[in-house]
Amino acid sequence: MGQLMARLMLDKGVTLVGVIDTHPDLVGRDVGEVLGLPSLLNITVSDDAEEVLSTSSADIAIVSLVSEFDAMEPFLTECITNRLNVISTSREVSHGWTVSPAAASRIHRLAQQYGVTVTASGFQDIFLVNQVSMLSGASHEINRIILKSQYDVNEFGAVVAKDMRVGWTPQEVLAEVEAHGPTPSYIRFCIEAIASDLGLTISSLTQSTVPVTEAFAVECTPLDRTIESGLVTGLTEVTTIQTHQGVSFHGEWTGKVYGPNEADTTECRIEGKPNLEILNRGVDPSATTCTQMVNRIPDVINAPAGYVTYEKLPKLRYRAYPFDTYVTA
Amino acid sequence: MGQLMARLMLDKGVTLVGVIDTHPDLVGRDVGEVLGLPSLLNITVSDDAEEVLSTSSADIAIVSLVSEFDAMEPFLTECITNRLNVISTSREVSHGWTVSPAAASRIHRLAQQYGVTVTASGFQDIFLVNQVSMLSGASHEINRIILKSQYDVNEFGAVVAKDMRVGWTPQEVLAEVEAHGPTPSYIRFCIEAIASDLGLTISSLTQSTVPVTEAFAVECTPLDRTIESGLVTGLTEVTTIQTHQGVSFHGEWTGKVYGPNEADTTECRIEGKPNLEILNRGVDPSATTCTQMVNRIPDVINAPAGYVTYEKLPKLRYRAYPFDTYVTA
Repeated sequence: MGQLMARLMLDKGVTLVGVIDTHPDLVGRDVGEVLGLPSLLNITVSDDAEEVLSTSSADIAIVSLVSEFDAMEPFLTECITNRLNVISTSREVSHGWTVSPAAASRIHRLAQQYGVTVTASGFQDIFLVNQVSMLSGASHEINRIILKSQYDVNEFGAVVAKDMRVGWTPQEVLAEVEAHGPTPSYIRFCIEAIASDLGLTISSLTQSTVPVTEAFAVECTPLDRTIESGLVTGLTEVTTIQTHQGVSFHGEWTGKVYGPNEADTTECRIEGKPNLEILNRGVDPSATTCTQMVNRIPDVINAPAGYVTYEKLPKLRYRAYPFDTYVTA
Repeated sequence: MGQLMARLMLDKGVTLVGVIDTHPDLVGRDVGEVLGLPSLLNITVSDDAEEVLSTSSADIAIVSLVSEFDAMEPFLTECITNRLNVISTSREVSHGWTVSPAAASRIHRLAQQYGVTVTASGFQDIFLVNQVSMLSGASHEINRIILKSQYDVNEFGAVVAKDMRVGWTPQEVLAEVEAHGPTPSYIRFCIEAIASDLGLTISSLTQSTVPVTEAFAVECTPLDRTIESGLVTGLTEVTTIQTHQGVSFHGEWTGKVYGPNEADTTECRIEGKPNLEILNRGVDPSATTCTQMVNRIPDVINAPAGYVTYEKLPKLRYRAYPFDTYVTA
């Protein structure tokens, strides 16, 4: 993902001034060579974050590290105190106000103090947050917002297939959920961002994890194994949220081994006056994570200082000219 | 539509201070009674626009009159010089910069001079303009943007059915197009707004009108007539636009008598890196014209003075509280 984002940025006229990675296969190599470009970029991959951050004169740091806000806080702090704007792929940084309120407030105040903006983006920026929020602009009354999104476990490695409990029995999954609770929710942060954008305040939240099975056998390529009918092909993480204003949310995030004719699908239904629907089929979640991260760069640089989550940023959009022509800050 | 918008506004805490209509069945009646409310509103429908506009202390005028910019100019001027912000359903006011550049510039300067904003909204605000523009935020490169939208002629009156040439032969329609040129394009203004939002400049534009036929008979309820297979059930207006930046647009706007299992459908496909798709099914175009017109009110009041088309306004969205709590201007 980092390599794809670097290539996309170069295409958009962004100048790379430093690259940090700790992978021993990358450290010390020229970034142009790592990316397979026809020429060197005269930037070396470094594992010394403090040295790169303190000596580069960058406008923004693109940070792809871990999901949890608390684990991200020291990295965000290091970027902020070096006066860098930040955009991150971190799931929890996307809307960290309830999962880590103290850390989110610290990051917000620190970013304001240093005059920089911290935000996150990813697949969900358009497809599970801002597109849904915009669809609600055609609503007069809303009873419930239903969000469903699925991706193909076969597009990822064996780690994801194991995380998604592919090949387990449904009983084993249910026993694990009973023992350890549901898996941390991705879609929770999406719903919290939408609620915030619509002026809704959350009164209760439930999460559950449901095993997915199919009536036919599927091939799990990362595990090199046929998953027979009835065994688990993946998991659906279900989040429901009630708000004080009477609008409820139901979110489902499914990662599973696809059968024939299945496609990446994101759908939203708003039940209310009137009913509204939106469907995206065949949108690649990892490619569009990278494109949105990169296309957000001018918005983040232009945004007011602080921890500014993506529902507060301008409408994300394609820009025909090099990014520096859109920077007003 | 005016009556539905009035009811929606009252629900959102908007105070109506004047209503103008020239229909003899309405003039002189109390607005509460016209709307079927349980009580009177102590506002009388007036046919004296100048009197209502000059004596009301309104923040905004909701104007639903005619499609053409030039025909709208005197009405817009009257609102502006009475220091009223304006939102209109007018098709050409939605993006009038190329169809009526001189009038659009006059309106822009006049609105700036009086410190008010003129804009338009309607079904297309979200579904054919801003949603498409936002989808492009996941694009790295765009080759072509394809937009298609269809509505059911049976949901409208006999005038629309006749306008859509229902029951004609395809040869008759083609001969008429040959003689008089294509019908004025609705989707042209949508594409021009998207292009403007994406920083694209138009190098060429073509429009055509294509008769629609079906392999089965359909019932045209407003004409009380069965349309046999092979006869025209409606028209597709096709607009193609090329830009200097290499991105092209293909738009289709279809009004036809639906067969069984057809639904109002709007779809967009962005061909590029990556390919992206969005589909809305079952979204009522006239209801969502009214909801979007009303939900835009705070955005228009908050916008800078001038003629500000909707792709320049903030992301339209549902708001949980009365509208005056969102007004910052």
